[in-house]
Amino acid sequence: MTTIKKIGKIPKLKNPIFIEGLPGVGNIGRVAAGYLIKELKAKKFAELYSEHFFPFVILHDDFKIGLLKNKFYYYKAKKAGERDIVFMTGDCQSLSPNGHYDVVESVLEFIQKLGVKEMITIGGLATGEIEKKPGIIGAATDDKIIKKYEKSGIDFVAGEKVGYIVGAAGLFLGLGKERGMSGICVLGETSGFPIVTDPKSAESVLNSITKVLKLKVSMNRLEERVKEMEKFIKKVEELQRKALMQISKEERAPVKGKEQLRYIG
Amino acid sequence: MTTIKKIGKIPKLKNPIFIEGLPGVGNIGRVAAGYLIKELKAKKFAELYSEHFFPFVILHDDFKIGLLKNKFYYYKAKKAGERDIVFMTGDCQSLSPNGHYDVVESVLEFIQKLGVKEMITIGGLATGEIEKKPGIIGAATDDKIIKKYEKSGIDFVAGEKVGYIVGAAGLFLGLGKERGMSGICVLGETSGFPIVTDPKSAESVLNSITKVLKLKVSMNRLEERVKEMEKFIKKVEELQRKALMQISKEERAPVKGKEQLRYIG
Amino acid sequence: MTTIKKIGKIPKLKNPIFIEGLPGVGNIGRVAAGYLIKELKAKKFAELYSEHFFPFVILHDDFKIGLLKNKFYYYKAKKAGERDIVFMTGDCQSLSPNGHYDVVESVLEFIQKLGVKEMITIGGLATGEIEKKPGIIGAATDDKIIKKYEKSGIDFVAGEKVGYIVGAAGLFLGLGKERGMSGICVLGETSGFPIVTDPKSAESVLNSITKVLKLKVSMNRLEERVKEMEKFIKKVEELQRKALMQISKEERAPVKGKEQLRYIG
Amino acid sequence: MTTIKKIGKIPKLKNPIFIEGLPGVGNIGRVAAGYLIKELKAKKFAELYSEHFFPFVILHDDFKIGLLKNKFYYYKAKKAGERDIVFMTGDCQSLSPNGHYDVVESVLEFIQKLGVKEMITIGGLATGEIEKKPGIIGAATDDKIIKKYEKSGIDFVAGEKVGYIVGAAGLFLGLGKERGMSGICVLGETSGFPIVTDPKSAESVLNSITKVLKLKVSMNRLEERVKEMEKFIKKVEELQRKALMQISKEERAPVKGKEQLRYIG
Repeated sequence: MTTIKKIGKIPKLKNPIFIEGLPGVGNIGRVAAGYLIKELKAKKFAELYSEHFFPFVILHDDFKIGLLKNKFYYYKAKKAGERDIVFMTGDCQSLSPNGHYDVVESVLEFIQKLGVKEMITIGGLATGEIEKKPGIIGAATDDKIIKKYEKSGIDFVAGEKVGYIVGAAGLFLGLGKERGMSGICVLGETSGFPIVTDPKSAESVLNSITKVLKLKVSMNRLEERVKEMEKFIKKVEELQRKALMQISKEERAPVKGKEQLRYIG
Repeated sequence: MTTIKKIGKIPKLKNPIFIEGLPGVGNIGRVAAGYLIKELKAKKFAELYSEHFFPFVILHDDFKIGLLKNKFYYYKAKKAGERDIVFMTGDCQSLSPNGHYDVVESVLEFIQKLGVKEMITIGGLATGEIEKKPGIIGAATDDKIIKKYEKSGIDFVAGEKVGYIVGAAGLFLGLGKERGMSGICVLGETSGFPIVTDPKSAESVLNSITKVLKLKVSMNRLEERVKEMEKFIKKVEELQRKALMQISKEERAPVKGKEQLRYIG
Repeated sequence: MTTIKKIGKIPKLKNPIFIEGLPGVGNIGRVAAGYLIKELKAKKFAELYSEHFFPFVILHDDFKIGLLKNKFYYYKAKKAGERDIVFMTGDCQSLSPNGHYDVVESVLEFIQKLGVKEMITIGGLATGEIEKKPGIIGAATDDKIIKKYEKSGIDFVAGEKVGYIVGAAGLFLGLGKERGMSGICVLGETSGFPIVTDPKSAESVLNSITKVLKLKVSMNRLEERVKEMEKFIKKVEELQRKALMQISKEERAPVKGKEQLRYIG
Repeated sequence: MTTIKKIGKIPKLKNPIFIEGLPGVGNIGRVAAGYLIKELKAKKFAELYSEHFFPFVILHDDFKIGLLKNKFYYYKAKKAGERDIVFMTGDCQSLSPNGHYDVVESVLEFIQKLGVKEMITIGGLATGEIEKKPGIIGAATDDKIIKKYEKSGIDFVAGEKVGYIVGAAGLFLGLGKERGMSGICVLGETSGFPIVTDPKSAESVLNSITKVLKLKVSMNRLEERVKEMEKFIKKVEELQRKALMQISKEERAPVKGKEQLRYIG
């Protein structure tokens, strides 16, 4: 069960590009997508929840309950050279391996109906080192996309340096290609230490993406926004870790004492 | 496969409120719901079983076999100010993460047809300390609900102090909200040491709930009832732990001796 | 996917009783059901395989390949007092917890169409001790069944001594009861040390069952038959253990050396 | 969700034999099938991907993204004595136990429509020793097949020496037999040390298979081809191991510090 619910109306979109940024290494995707949504005043028009997410609710604003969700926003082109955009960001990715396939297929089905033919997915590349000047590494579905993006500071050496992309950022391109869609995965280098949101790397990624999409977005508020977002991202991260511990504690709970085990099969 | 079977007739219910209390931390929910059902002489009208529960049967009354089940009871308002109530309690929650979503969605589907628009879920909040005067902490779907409940001794600081609610107690509100239902999760503070049923905390929760619902329920028999219930609750808890051990023993059983491993792929 | 395939014809059965014996603790069920099938010359009429079984094939007779299967046999009553019987035995039970529910429901669906209303499931009860005179412990769906069986040496103290029954032996009765079927689980006490087939306990179980069913079955060939069966049972047991090791080895395979982990999310 | 997509046209095949070789112990199957496909210039006509595979994409050719896939090729008989062949090879097998059943059933459904009635699956048999002259061991669905193959250097002692076949190589024969198909599993002995592609054992297997199928295939280019293939096979193997580590790291991530665990149930 993966449910996508439209909320509010969606205007007719003209050849929209899809930008996905979910929590992951360095939270590059989550931060970059979240910042663009805020700066461009993109409008939320759909939400997704799934049995493949953690079986808990988060408590927002001190008392209100919220399902774990992924969210969709649209941006209508306002200036010359801009394109309509569909954004996807959210609280989490799937808990189970097969859940990734299910959620991504559901979203592809949904955005294809909105007219999406091109995608940008954003992720982090853990290098194990503190990167002074985080590089931007790209992987793409085809040569045409590479030509389009290679002038914007993206290094197409992912095959050699990376080898694979786990989760939604990769599967969107892999499964999307099967539907005739094309796209690029933009990876910001980051140390990869857990629970570190890396605004520097997110900024590098944002610079590349806005250049290609001819979006005028000031980076002035990034630091501030990251602080706002980080509080919530950290909370969800921590909760997922705790929930995992609780789940596995329940699953592995030992029997106390030397009671005689009488079981049946 | 989650099956809900009606047993017996259900009279037409008038704007019923749903009260859920399943086994969990301190068994606050299980005990509080169970006590209300008994004291109000609520009538059982449906049972639920699911492939997401443990794959075993329990032996009641020394020899009779029973599936693990969740059970539904109704209470028709008798006095002025009272409301019709649908109760859900039972032996266990789901074993698998996605099972929680499946079971809760099945129940929401079911109770919505009974006219339920409002829910109270009951849980325990493990504090790691023996609470002398266990506080009652609430989380809700919206502000209206909070206004209704904040005079009954419930502290709406769950976001700050808790952060998330695992399992049915949280998902009922999260997934119910998506169906236009509203509700509150009432959490009784408890030490959280495993296999401890905490009647004190359950009593605090019961006091809050009965106040809001204008139910006259004496707490005189609580201690006695807890003893009755506890025997069975403990048994199921222990059995689940043993079954988990058995399952994981089977899954991890090592090969004895130094036999040569000849395998194929 | 659980598939039940009929092989050969089935004569009209008259109020048949269902006897289930699958591998488990002490292999009591497997041995007892297997011996009855052989001695009564029951005829195979259906086979079951399932995605919930181990993902491997066994090699019979030195070179021929066989799926893991459960098998169904029928016995037509020949003498006064006898009843028609449907037997189920086989190579294994489900690998996953929810698989147990799926397989058992599929079989109940199937045998209900054959007219089965009553069931005997056979299991072992691990006591942790070498039992000199293994007791026979019963658990049942209702009082009527208990009355019928209590004169045949079955002790109805399962609730107290056992508490729960894991897997098919229990779920057949629990889920069958929901379909209006009744039945008994007969448990032979056994030490429960792994990979020990316990013919003594199986004999006690057989004595009880044949008494109730008024079957004249000599126990003379039991030892011999157990030796025949044991070779194969042991093989499958060992293979499942090895396969589990292989599966978990694959799932947990560590990365050799100090290679730099560059991953992406 | 297991999807098989036809790409390009398929000519009418005449009683084609199916040859399957996927990654596994020693990569015997992957290498042997891959070599035959290349040498016979077999044509790709279909691709399979599945939610049962790892949830990641691989980066081919330094930057281009690819889903994990299994691939189908056909070869039209060109010389007297040859037969039409359908090949299946690919990047990986299923991640989950039940996934094996699902993928294999999907493929059987597909190839049966192409007219396949006979199958050869190829695997490796880990002996734990460096084999100087790797033996070829066979297991089959029936005696007829054994008679056909026993003159080609295949030893039908699998039952005794092997006992079981895990994954696709075994399930194709087991589940195929249920559909009236027959076949043989050809196992090349290999040391079984992980991440070792064993071209010697693959060559022995190829010699047997080409003899039976009356295919004239030179082994001259095997070493060279293995080197080509090995780079990619190793990469996927390594990635799967890393991904597993990442998945289990995420699943087991411990909570840092001595934070107070406040959880709810």
